[in-house]
Amino acid sequence: MARSPRQTNDLILDAAYGLFWRQGFLRVSMDQIAERAKLTKRTLYQRFRSKDDMIAATLAHASELALGRLESIELPTNRDAMIDSLFAQIADWAAAPRWSGAGFTRVVVELADLRGHPARAIARRHKAAVEAWYANRLALAKVSSPRKRAREIILLTEGAMMLMLIHGDRSYAEAAARAAKRLVRER
Amino acid sequence: MARSPRQTNDLILDAAYGLFWRQGFLRVSMDQIAERAKLTKRTLYQRFRSKDDMIAATLAHASELALGRLESIELPTNRDAMIDSLFAQIADWAAAPRWSGAGFTRVVVELADLRGHPARAIARRHKAAVEAWYANRLALAKVSSPRKRAREIILLTEGAMMLMLIHGDRSYAEAAARAAKRLVRER
Repeated sequence: MARSPRQTNDLILDAAYGLFWRQGFLRVSMDQIAERAKLTKRTLYQRFRSKDDMIAATLAHASELALGRLESIELPTNRDAMIDSLFAQIADWAAAPRWSGAGFTRVVVELADLRGHPARAIARRHKAAVEAWYANRLALAKVSSPRKRAREIILLTEGAMMLMLIHGDRSYAEAAARAAKRLVRER
Repeated sequence: MARSPRQTNDLILDAAYGLFWRQGFLRVSMDQIAERAKLTKRTLYQRFRSKDDMIAATLAHASELALGRLESIELPTNRDAMIDSLFAQIADWAAAPRWSGAGFTRVVVELADLRGHPARAIARRHKAAVEAWYANRLALAKVSSPRKRAREIILLTEGAMMLMLIHGDRSYAEAAARAAKRLVRER
């Protein structure tokens, strides 16, 4: 059965996504991606000029999916309950077997010395979109200065994810939630 | 002139340190380290069984140096001034040319799927020591519950470093400092 070019692309991006998230962006080879997608390397290179282009395409695809999921996330509209729920969801995610940190954070670290890499711009836009999403949700919960508070929330979520990866200890997310609740309180 | 085994070790660790910090832990090869240290690969393997062992030794050495530097850091003892100074020093560090994030954070991310790697335990101990150092300094500034507040400070410093790496924007450290000052205030 013939596959459309779109289907072939999806096969490649799904295979790349799985491998990149499991092993990191640097360690995965085009051979591994071809093997997992059950395609030839020639087919891969017809669609993506290089592994770097494939990393960028995989992240762009992942960002679109992740931002779509954020829009549909159910969060309480009560301020404190919203924050507790947000950090609890992050802690649950971090507790998954073989969790290896936030994918967009990871790609930035792995490509830390390659500022011009196309994946860096995608990660930047993704994190800015997450921060804007926090601001929207805080505004819905009637938090004042929602954009300033959103910046504090993303500082705490990034910190909590990193410290959970380092220590394997969920209490960092709980401490972050407590700090966030104090920060969004009216003063 | 003959070198002592200690001098040879230092040569190797200095070379490895420079390369790892510049290019990340995964991309550097034993060949590159040998070339930079002006030693043969045989000499390297006489001292370190594997690149993984060398990563661990390099990090243990770097942790010792970094924790020694922390002890001698001058910080104001006034609470708010101390926090401003701490985050300003982090932002200055992040503004250095080719800064590529905190080294211990980076190694954890690069080895995210290798929980048993010896470098992970060293990074964990290092971050715990930094958190304890924050608690000591906060206690000197008469902040109450210094260990709880230290955990919030490390959440904010990790978040700020990551977001500065992502966005190249120092205002994340400034926002983190403002949040930290609100969190350490008496309530």
